[in-house]
Amino acid sequence: MPDPKQLFRQHLREIQTLHGALAVLGWDQEVTMPAGGARNRAAQRSVLAGIIHERVTAPALGAVMDDLAARDDLTAGEAANLRVFGLQRDRAVKLPERLVTDLAAAVGLAQPDWVRARQDGDWDLFAPHLQRIVALKREEAAALALGDEPYDSLLDEYEPGARTAQLVPVFADLRRRLTDLLSRIDTSGHPTLPAVPYAIDDQLLLSREVLAGMGYSFEHGRLDTSAHPFTESLGHGDVRITSRFMADEPLSGLSSTMHEGGHALYEQGLPADLSDTPAGQSTSLGIHESQSRLWENHVGRGLPYCQWLAPRLRQAFPEQLPELTAEELYLASNRVAATPIRTDADEVTYNLHIILRLELERALLNGDLEVADVPAAWREQTLDLLGIDIPDVARGPLQDIHWSMGALGYFPTYTLGNLYAAMFWNAARAELPALDDQLARGDCAPLLAWLRLKVHQRGSLETAEQLCRNITGHDLRADDFIAYLGTKFGIDR
Amino acid sequence: MPDPKQLFRQHLREIQTLHGALAVLGWDQEVTMPAGGARNRAAQRSVLAGIIHERVTAPALGAVMDDLAARDDLTAGEAANLRVFGLQRDRAVKLPERLVTDLAAAVGLAQPDWVRARQDGDWDLFAPHLQRIVALKREEAAALALGDEPYDSLLDEYEPGARTAQLVPVFADLRRRLTDLLSRIDTSGHPTLPAVPYAIDDQLLLSREVLAGMGYSFEHGRLDTSAHPFTESLGHGDVRITSRFMADEPLSGLSSTMHEGGHALYEQGLPADLSDTPAGQSTSLGIHESQSRLWENHVGRGLPYCQWLAPRLRQAFPEQLPELTAEELYLASNRVAATPIRTDADEVTYNLHIILRLELERALLNGDLEVADVPAAWREQTLDLLGIDIPDVARGPLQDIHWSMGALGYFPTYTLGNLYAAMFWNAARAELPALDDQLARGDCAPLLAWLRLKVHQRGSLETAEQLCRNITGHDLRADDFIAYLGTKFGIDR
Repeated sequence: MPDPKQLFRQHLREIQTLHGALAVLGWDQEVTMPAGGARNRAAQRSVLAGIIHERVTAPALGAVMDDLAARDDLTAGEAANLRVFGLQRDRAVKLPERLVTDLAAAVGLAQPDWVRARQDGDWDLFAPHLQRIVALKREEAAALALGDEPYDSLLDEYEPGARTAQLVPVFADLRRRLTDLLSRIDTSGHPTLPAVPYAIDDQLLLSREVLAGMGYSFEHGRLDTSAHPFTESLGHGDVRITSRFMADEPLSGLSSTMHEGGHALYEQGLPADLSDTPAGQSTSLGIHESQSRLWENHVGRGLPYCQWLAPRLRQAFPEQLPELTAEELYLASNRVAATPIRTDADEVTYNLHIILRLELERALLNGDLEVADVPAAWREQTLDLLGIDIPDVARGPLQDIHWSMGALGYFPTYTLGNLYAAMFWNAARAELPALDDQLARGDCAPLLAWLRLKVHQRGSLETAEQLCRNITGHDLRADDFIAYLGTKFGIDR
Repeated sequence: MPDPKQLFRQHLREIQTLHGALAVLGWDQEVTMPAGGARNRAAQRSVLAGIIHERVTAPALGAVMDDLAARDDLTAGEAANLRVFGLQRDRAVKLPERLVTDLAAAVGLAQPDWVRARQDGDWDLFAPHLQRIVALKREEAAALALGDEPYDSLLDEYEPGARTAQLVPVFADLRRRLTDLLSRIDTSGHPTLPAVPYAIDDQLLLSREVLAGMGYSFEHGRLDTSAHPFTESLGHGDVRITSRFMADEPLSGLSSTMHEGGHALYEQGLPADLSDTPAGQSTSLGIHESQSRLWENHVGRGLPYCQWLAPRLRQAFPEQLPELTAEELYLASNRVAATPIRTDADEVTYNLHIILRLELERALLNGDLEVADVPAAWREQTLDLLGIDIPDVARGPLQDIHWSMGALGYFPTYTLGNLYAAMFWNAARAELPALDDQLARGDCAPLLAWLRLKVHQRGSLETAEQLCRNITGHDLRADDFIAYLGTKFGIDR
């Protein structure tokens, strides 16, 4: 009889490999697939997802895991796999197939109508879909029965182990302090870059230089453009980025590249010896977002890095930006102004958008808010949080794709990422005293080495919560993020 | 209990869909994958291939097929699926897993050494691999036990139903008549196009125009470049082409595009209502090659089409080809000269390269030729067939990738394609009296409609043999091909 440790690894390897194959199908669909392939691609993805479900829930695998759980000679990787995969398997086993199929069908119907609803600003077109999706997600939460309230079961999919009760006080604290900050920050004097044409090819070249400087390996990835920038790991050794460039504004594309580059560095730095198992994958979406935000904001929007970047921008666009200084670039990169659209938001207002969504999602799931009342609640909350009026539902509750995909519980991971990024950034600065000088020279290697050691190489050996404590000595908190913003915008107290 | 017809279709759909997913992995590997992804991609392909094998050989599927075989109410599609999939399943069931694994391992080891051996002209490096592969392929042939000699079992994988004993007299006839033709053709007076730079982007644009004119749908495919041109169906509605362009010669890339375009038109024209089953796929590689050769040679190297193409070449390359005439283009496209390399061969000598390979492969499998004696036999046969000496083994038995992939029995399908193409071309000309005029205007629609009706829409409803008989009224023969060459090169008798 084969060793259960080996058997477990074989099962995990097959499942992980199938996830990689599924990622190839997804990447190709977004970047290279012709329109005519859509229908068949949906069938391919559905068949593969079904096979993964079959493999994940295989009774033989359960028996092997029971064997292993009783042993006391597990390595850290084996223990992590038992924990992480155990949660994934529980989730797969607990969800009735009927519910999975119904959700897939509901989402399939919702998506095209969401696109039209957003286009036409027509809430009534999308509302019945959202109603159906919320009902199914409540069923899902009841079946999973994690934590204390329905939202916990949904959150757990994206942020394993996180619970709403832990987030609520942190988010409340954040809300209070961000609202205060926002009322005191005035960046109306910050310059903007001239709105003239910046050739996309030149922007792409500069993005490649920036990525290479960050330590991204093109031998193990590639950069393409797509409508919505994303990072996808197509399997160990193949982590691809897409970015999006604006014809008359070069900073948006650069930010998007550095954001995705941060995600990709995490994926490229995951532990190779566990790459064929769940323990070798990212530990949570919050930690993933911490990596993208750290590079996009703490590095990319910081004055030291601007000192390296400004001359590169002058060189790439000698006609458009002949005399751009590091200080001008820094100020132009850090303008704060409330906007109804989350993805356009600056560092200060961004999390207020997330807090709004978390509140509404919880209320929907708890039955405290009806779908019909979402637009009014959204408007009221936006006014309250950001002090602005939303012009229409398209720039209100219809702006995000998440609900149409059934991804309730996802939004908080964006804010978790911002908070973790600030906490990790402080830890890095404390341990890398020359960091500012290094970044001013464009030398990202010491920072990357630190992130590799502290975050990337840990894979899922710890939960996000444990990882944060190990790196920073603290639980999740808003202090570091608030202090970082205060310093940046000259509002220390 | 579900209807066995529906059950059979469900099984076939899942398997066909998995084949499509495997094709996505393959295409991406050739066209977009970074080098670092190679190892993991091999694992992904191997896992998927294993799952396909598991699904194909599932005992439950055998029971369903037994049920269906006893019924007399099968549609043509169902009957074809029972026949075509039955052969594939027999093959999968008959091959012991140990042999499949050994072959995969042998091929995995052979490939890198073949690359080095060809580079260094080192037969001794490759010979042990070939020895092992031939031994395993003999085992495979013994396990499959199709036809009268070992070669039949291998040939059958690529050309279902074809038997060596049927090919041998046709190929012998072809050899005699080609050798005779070759001794009488003199194209030394044909012009060549100036060897100056032709921008790859302009070549690509012209290739797109040519493909669109042929009727290729870019809505259901795309054109990229790769080291070795190929066509891949990534599932119904997504049939992609790659081509290869030379910097100082525009006809090579155009031919490659039209060749792959012919393959792709076949795939795009397969019957949609059977697309999720084997009956909706191409009936054989020989028929597939007939479609590529028909467009590449009968259309592309024909005088009528040159009348449409010459002005387009003048327009695309006004500096390089300001006064190119249709007649010059036609003559430049039809130069005959023996070369040691198969893929460089013209229409006349090409099949002599195939005849050589068929003879040597049969001898290897029958035990009449030792691997150590292959270089000498290759040299002798090349001298005999083509009247030239091979300068080294790299331009002899090491030139093709096929043996290193274990693809013995594949080569004859190239010649079958040439013979079928000439037979179909004659049938098309008889039924489309205005064909030359249409092609001279670049109007390929009537020809495509005819091919759709006669070949593409038939999928695998008939075997290649039956299809040929239905379209031409004849069994496979060399007459049409020889007559076509005779007319083209002015050697009628």
